[in-house]
Amino acid sequence: MSPPKNAAPDIATLAHDLHAGSRAALARAITLVESRRADHQAAARELVQALLPQTGKAIRVGITGSPGVGKSTTIDALGMYLIEQDHKVAVLAVDPSSARTGGSILGDKTRMARLSHHEHAFIRPSPSSGTLGGVAAKTREAMLLCEAAGFDVVLVETVGIGQSETAVCDMTDFFLALMLPGGGDELQGIKKGLVELADMIAINKADGDNVKRANITAADYRGALHLLSPRSEHWHPPVVTYSAMAGAGIAELWQKVLDHRKAMIASGEFAARRRDQQVKWMWTMLEQRLMARLRTDPSIRAKVRKLETDVAEGRVAPALAAERLAEMLA
Amino acid sequence: MSPPKNAAPDIATLAHDLHAGSRAALARAITLVESRRADHQAAARELVQALLPQTGKAIRVGITGSPGVGKSTTIDALGMYLIEQDHKVAVLAVDPSSARTGGSILGDKTRMARLSHHEHAFIRPSPSSGTLGGVAAKTREAMLLCEAAGFDVVLVETVGIGQSETAVCDMTDFFLALMLPGGGDELQGIKKGLVELADMIAINKADGDNVKRANITAADYRGALHLLSPRSEHWHPPVVTYSAMAGAGIAELWQKVLDHRKAMIASGEFAARRRDQQVKWMWTMLEQRLMARLRTDPSIRAKVRKLETDVAEGRVAPALAAERLAEMLA
Repeated sequence: MSPPKNAAPDIATLAHDLHAGSRAALARAITLVESRRADHQAAARELVQALLPQTGKAIRVGITGSPGVGKSTTIDALGMYLIEQDHKVAVLAVDPSSARTGGSILGDKTRMARLSHHEHAFIRPSPSSGTLGGVAAKTREAMLLCEAAGFDVVLVETVGIGQSETAVCDMTDFFLALMLPGGGDELQGIKKGLVELADMIAINKADGDNVKRANITAADYRGALHLLSPRSEHWHPPVVTYSAMAGAGIAELWQKVLDHRKAMIASGEFAARRRDQQVKWMWTMLEQRLMARLRTDPSIRAKVRKLETDVAEGRVAPALAAERLAEMLA
Repeated sequence: MSPPKNAAPDIATLAHDLHAGSRAALARAITLVESRRADHQAAARELVQALLPQTGKAIRVGITGSPGVGKSTTIDALGMYLIEQDHKVAVLAVDPSSARTGGSILGDKTRMARLSHHEHAFIRPSPSSGTLGGVAAKTREAMLLCEAAGFDVVLVETVGIGQSETAVCDMTDFFLALMLPGGGDELQGIKKGLVELADMIAINKADGDNVKRANITAADYRGALHLLSPRSEHWHPPVVTYSAMAGAGIAELWQKVLDHRKAMIASGEFAARRRDQQVKWMWTMLEQRLMARLRTDPSIRAKVRKLETDVAEGRVAPALAAERLAEMLA
């Protein structure tokens, strides 16, 4: 192994500087959280634990939407609106594909032209390492660090790939799905998994000639959602229209987030959801830790792949295979 | 501990008798799978592995519906129809609540008046031990045993509690959601999670005065489903009406199951889904095995509960708690 390039930093100093609002300290802390080095990981755990009392106060909003829906423009417009309201806004991302492509949905900050230069905004691209579980874990910790640094709104962006939407929903208070106006046969379907998660559907590009189409689309989606039991009896996910480009409807969109927050706090669901998320997060991290050896040790990995194939092709019963995996870990 | 009451039976004999079609051997094998004794569990793994080549050929159908929807009547009518078509029908259940209540959704076989007395049917109530994961694991193994015993249709019933529907969907080829006719404001919503899973929605009690209401309900649900992207481009979940009591629409309902099977086999999704299910099953069983100590060892359990509370209340960061759990397991 290569010798340590940089020793783990002094945690007390880093925690102090971060909490005092140093952007450099925040960036360094997130880098520490994202590091794979064992000593860095131990230091990161210590740092997050030290800052824990300063976390949890932000409004956490997950935002999803297919490419082309105008996610960056929306975050830019929403973020600037929030800053005008005296909020400090952190923007994070969960993009497991960035590990493969080397890029990140937030890599190109120029797509958030105004927000990326504002001193009350902090934008951090998706961690680009490994599995969705790993990426999500690092984003969750980065979110806590942003909160400790005084950011009181955290927007977590994701693309609708696989389970990344569930991961973002599991770390936020409100999950917002962005859609485009459709028309007749072109009407894009709502992904089924999304219906389960979304606290609101917002239809972008409701401007110019598109306004009428956007309204029709919204009415269609409202009709569809009406037939589905809401997750909470205190919140029926609304469908709204807006235009990120024209800045229309952004204030109304944010008001829904606040309405939701108020209703959830009043019913006790807000606290329950946060508690559940934290406990689930603990178990997920334990699972990742236990499974890590099966994924990293090369000789074990080969055996795991062989077992997976044998199970998939019906040669070995899953229970027997699980027993053999457990023996490898023992 | 109490001394062993019955030694693990001779596996070769049991496998032979079961494959020859002995109902007594099948019942005994399922009891072995459901046993918590370590020697029984090892014997059960050996038995399932020995019978594995005789499994996988059945049509596996999951059936869900709220209490009152007529699930038992439906399974009775569908099962008798399938027996008339020369099928042998096994009926299993996943009901994690049965551990608490001592009862089971299939406990009262009298609710399947005709099927329960037919020699070509085999009805087994839900295992009544422990967690959903444990119940589901035992039902999956019971399904394999039924297949090895020559049952070529397996119906797996569940009530829509928590994650039990996902568990049943993960072990079947086709997931059927039963609903009731509604009207105006009474129209019951489709549970969101169900929309994600269902390969068909079937509206029961479409008889007498209810026919018109059932048709309106079906049209409403069709409209809602139309706005959702289908899980497969080769299958758009249909909405049908039927009457289990009058026996109307049962043949048409089953035809949809066969149509789905044909489309999935042609597209290759059938084989892919089975493979994915088996591999997922292996990982789930490994996880259960690794977690078992945290749940069973009393001194560890108390510490786990304390950690969960600390994490829920924001005193300990999830990453740190996961680290401590891992140390307990080491």
